[in-house]
Amino acid sequence: KGKYCVTLLPGDGIGPEILAVTVDVLKVIGKQFDIPFDFQEALIGGAAIDATGEPLPAETLQLCRNSDAVLLAAIGGYKWDELPRHQRPETGLLAIRAGLNLFANLRPATILPQLIDASSLKREVVEGVDIMVVRELTGGIYFGQPKGIFTTETGEKRGVNTMAYTESEIDRIAKVAFETAQKRQGKLCSVDKANVLDVSQLWRDRVTLMGQKYPDVELSHMYVDNAAMQLVRAPKQFDTIVTGNLFGDILSDAAAMLTGSIGMLPSASLGLEKPGLFEPVHGSAPDIAGLDKANPLAQILSAAMMLRYGLEQPQAADKIEQGVLEVLAQGYRTGDIMSSGMKALGCRAMGDVLLKV
Amino acid sequence: KGKYCVTLLPGDGIGPEILAVTVDVLKVIGKQFDIPFDFQEALIGGAAIDATGEPLPAETLQLCRNSDAVLLAAIGGYKWDELPRHQRPETGLLAIRAGLNLFANLRPATILPQLIDASSLKREVVEGVDIMVVRELTGGIYFGQPKGIFTTETGEKRGVNTMAYTESEIDRIAKVAFETAQKRQGKLCSVDKANVLDVSQLWRDRVTLMGQKYPDVELSHMYVDNAAMQLVRAPKQFDTIVTGNLFGDILSDAAAMLTGSIGMLPSASLGLEKPGLFEPVHGSAPDIAGLDKANPLAQILSAAMMLRYGLEQPQAADKIEQGVLEVLAQGYRTGDIMSSGMKALGCRAMGDVLLKV
Ligand SMILES: CC(C)[C@H](C(=O)O)[C@@H](O)C(=O)O
Ligand SMILES: CC(C)[C@H](C(=O)O)[C@@H](O)C(=O)O
Repeated sequence: KGKYCVTLLPGDGIGPEILAVTVDVLKVIGKQFDIPFDFQEALIGGAAIDATGEPLPAETLQLCRNSDAVLLAAIGGYKWDELPRHQRPETGLLAIRAGLNLFANLRPATILPQLIDASSLKREVVEGVDIMVVRELTGGIYFGQPKGIFTTETGEKRGVNTMAYTESEIDRIAKVAFETAQKRQGKLCSVDKANVLDVSQLWRDRVTLMGQKYPDVELSHMYVDNAAMQLVRAPKQFDTIVTGNLFGDILSDAAAMLTGSIGMLPSASLGLEKPGLFEPVHGSAPDIAGLDKANPLAQILSAAMMLRYGLEQPQAADKIEQGVLEVLAQGYRTGDIMSSGMKALGCRAMGDVLLKV
Repeated sequence: KGKYCVTLLPGDGIGPEILAVTVDVLKVIGKQFDIPFDFQEALIGGAAIDATGEPLPAETLQLCRNSDAVLLAAIGGYKWDELPRHQRPETGLLAIRAGLNLFANLRPATILPQLIDASSLKREVVEGVDIMVVRELTGGIYFGQPKGIFTTETGEKRGVNTMAYTESEIDRIAKVAFETAQKRQGKLCSVDKANVLDVSQLWRDRVTLMGQKYPDVELSHMYVDNAAMQLVRAPKQFDTIVTGNLFGDILSDAAAMLTGSIGMLPSASLGLEKPGLFEPVHGSAPDIAGLDKANPLAQILSAAMMLRYGLEQPQAADKIEQGVLEVLAQGYRTGDIMSSGMKALGCRAMGDVLLKV
């Protein structure tokens, strides 16, 4: 039986420490479930810029392409913020998404009962919230041409980006979204700005058309400004949300913040084929890097998403997810989710208790 | 002494009834402060489509151009949702913004102590929130060319919109924003997506440059996804926000919803010259149209913004705003903001008590 080749991308800031803890968890899970992992590490983001001058070295992309799954931690930091755009850590992230054709980004925002008080919203508003945002990740205004800063006839500068989607780009993300909704509560809300944008009108038409193939999914449409309001007002109305790259960036972050604990949220980025890429929603938190203070649970839950969506090992994924709930139920907390009466732990110790529950 | 010529645009749904109540308030205030109004009414939105086939008849635009201020109620409704884009009510709204060159949209989101329980957020999170979103309104992806649905070489359709800003467009909205911040708490947060978008990079550079002229304003920059999170997590950190058309659409609605009572929120759209346009943030609420149930206070507060920003009558504006607070303090509520122990009123009756306090 072959091995699962997993490329590890520790990146920057707290990335290396949360990923190290996660790999230890995966090793134990791998033994328990007889899943043979073959881990290899590669450079991305600021770490790659420092070592090679580029945020996504060709070697890293090649290693990823040859693996079954990619587990990314976090990228970025003040240090690289002033570099030109092609040398910025974020550019490496965009390049790996494009390079691996990861067009479907799944971002769950789930309220964990143990952490409900961390939310800035009232308990009754967020209790039971369980939203999956399906964000298109390799198209739209992130990649549309033309783009750049040009000089107009009158000699002033004009910054330009293009928000564009083709029918086939819309269709493939819509398909993922309908299938995701089928496995959930069967409700799909497509978010666009069709009252203003032509690209959204095409989006809405194609999603509606695709909906005919999924009579079991209840499809609705919402304008992006209203969606931002409704997420704040009454988030329980949402089950699965599908939207374009930019709207997905904004709304998935808003949805994540409803939970009050973004140190807990994983994500998956998938293409038509392996490898998928799995990463926490939170950033690289350079201010606490190396201090063993970071919360490794979003990274660990990203590894669970990898097992579920990337390696077809749902039982191992369940085991990890249950372990995380159990650790929280037993009152263990890292600093970001600490509250009175709970047991404070560092990053490494959190991984250790997880392996013991 | 000349008259103030105000064009009234009742529009659709609850528009006519909230505007009628507001005009009565203005007439009384006009007498008290010796402000002679000359009101004229014109068609926009669905009402204009029904009467003339167009959402913004040329005659309406001409009347507006010749007036000192425009007071708009609300547009849109299910009835017109399936029409082609150039015949939709929203198109009339975009056309009047462009036609009057209203590039600066001021959207306050203020928590009123009397209504704080209406918020879906915890009291301690929203108490004291007082945000002004300065949204660019005549540029960006709403108006950028090229746009449309085109056929690609492979024969599939491609929807396209262009997000573009020139230096001068950025400069003029930045100027309004810095001056607005000066009159407030002196903090300005510029929101963009400069880590991905070239147009945002230009935006950030120009706003930074303009900031050198306003050493008394504390300028910061934030990515739009983070801003959506921070509005949910800790809205009190914001004073004045400046951003482009699309981000402003999304973030001003999210900010508005923090208050839990968007039936209370006014807005102002200003150009370099008169007339400005003043309208409530909420929509036309077709489901309660004609039932005398609508909350007229956002429209009345929009009239106060008109007095303040459009007609240089700050005392009259103060008077209206204080009246609204007083009405709330005395426990009067329309259905949308009703809570137990308060006195429920219809639209017209709310206007009447306001004139008596
Ligand atoms: C870092 C940035 C380029 C990225 C994005 O905008 O996609 C991030 O915000 C995300 O959501 O993963
Ligand atoms: C109705 C629509 C065109 C409009 C906009 O997107 O600007 C509205 O959402 C607003 O914010 O005034």
